[in-house]
Amino acid sequence: MKTVILFDVNETLLDLRALEPLFERAFGNAQVREQWFREMLLLAFQATILDQYRPFGEHARAALRMLAQQLERPLSDADERAILDQMKQLPAFPDVAPGLTRLRQADFRMAALTNSTEEVGTAQLRHAGIFDQFERVFSADRVRRLKPAPEPYQMAAYEMGVAPADAWLVAAHGWDVAGAAAVGCRTAFLARPGKVLDPLGPAPTLVAKDVGAIAGLLLEAAAAR
Amino acid sequence: MKTVILFDVNETLLDLRALEPLFERAFGNAQVREQWFREMLLLAFQATILDQYRPFGEHARAALRMLAQQLERPLSDADERAILDQMKQLPAFPDVAPGLTRLRQADFRMAALTNSTEEVGTAQLRHAGIFDQFERVFSADRVRRLKPAPEPYQMAAYEMGVAPADAWLVAAHGWDVAGAAAVGCRTAFLARPGKVLDPLGPAPTLVAKDVGAIAGLLLEAAAAR
Repeated sequence: MKTVILFDVNETLLDLRALEPLFERAFGNAQVREQWFREMLLLAFQATILDQYRPFGEHARAALRMLAQQLERPLSDADERAILDQMKQLPAFPDVAPGLTRLRQADFRMAALTNSTEEVGTAQLRHAGIFDQFERVFSADRVRRLKPAPEPYQMAAYEMGVAPADAWLVAAHGWDVAGAAAVGCRTAFLARPGKVLDPLGPAPTLVAKDVGAIAGLLLEAAAAR
Repeated sequence: MKTVILFDVNETLLDLRALEPLFERAFGNAQVREQWFREMLLLAFQATILDQYRPFGEHARAALRMLAQQLERPLSDADERAILDQMKQLPAFPDVAPGLTRLRQADFRMAALTNSTEEVGTAQLRHAGIFDQFERVFSADRVRRLKPAPEPYQMAAYEMGVAPADAWLVAAHGWDVAGAAAVGCRTAFLARPGKVLDPLGPAPTLVAKDVGAIAGLLLEAAAAR
């Protein structure tokens, strides 16, 4: 059976640092981008806990508005739109295209699994030039529960025709890896700069610095069987 | 029937800015304190989504260690201990003691409801000199689900002998207000500096800048009935 690999998208495949000039323009500080991403995650997690589902992009917009209020820096409609539009036009990290190609040539089956809507996820992967590497693009929106809730991982594994234990989840976020592990997936933590694991969480199946290194480790593991 | 008011503790009654010199010492930057609090919340929310309960203090410690890794700044045991110990010795905001006294004199029934353990919450309120203002101190630890999950609010209302709809929750966090609202509590958002509401969330029953202002609004509402 071919190995199934699910890839998270934002910060795992795509580099959100491309947003920084827009945060610099809107808030006078490029670093606000990371604060925004955390605030957005808090809103998304809160909605998941309260079972009050909304598409991820609505949390993205709400978090921008909260930051503008917190920083007492009014956000123009143009700046807001520019940031949200740019989210669909992010570059892939340089290791992504060659790493995915290597995995595909080795006959792994690959899909994307994102908290963004299917429309946004598809637009993102197309713009980054890596859409064709994936058999499918799955969005948590389809099950109206965001990662790290169990449903998105279970849905993606089911749609790929495997048990969760026969799928890998690759992500640069500890919470994503933890959610996938909780439903039995094997997990690869992509240790992108500044990304660290919860020291209390379960260790991922493997840790690597880029997609090429993940490909190497998965190929080794496949060869050893 | 006397009105029951549940008060969140950290950042609502107690001023976490007292930790800033310790963050300055440990990380060379007092602002890391806010980043730490957000990281801790993300870990706590993640654990709630995954139903992997841990006492809140463990997330506090894990978030400190994650920040040290992210910032590539090793955290000494002494600095870690100093921050976690200081959490039990935070000052109340200056409006808290007079505001609580005013509510108590008006015969409101008050309890604290915190994500910290009962031991930590009690130590915090004692140190801040406001423990005697409360009939009870409730911890989410008792139901092993952290706020904003429904169980802590429901437990506290039950223990105070009222329906959730007959209890108020006062908090400086939008997520706490949203969680209480979701189980039917009335809610007061305490708009402490830098604290803002999710623009997508339901409006709280009332918004005020300090506990005295909340007391005034609750007394007005009680007089109008």
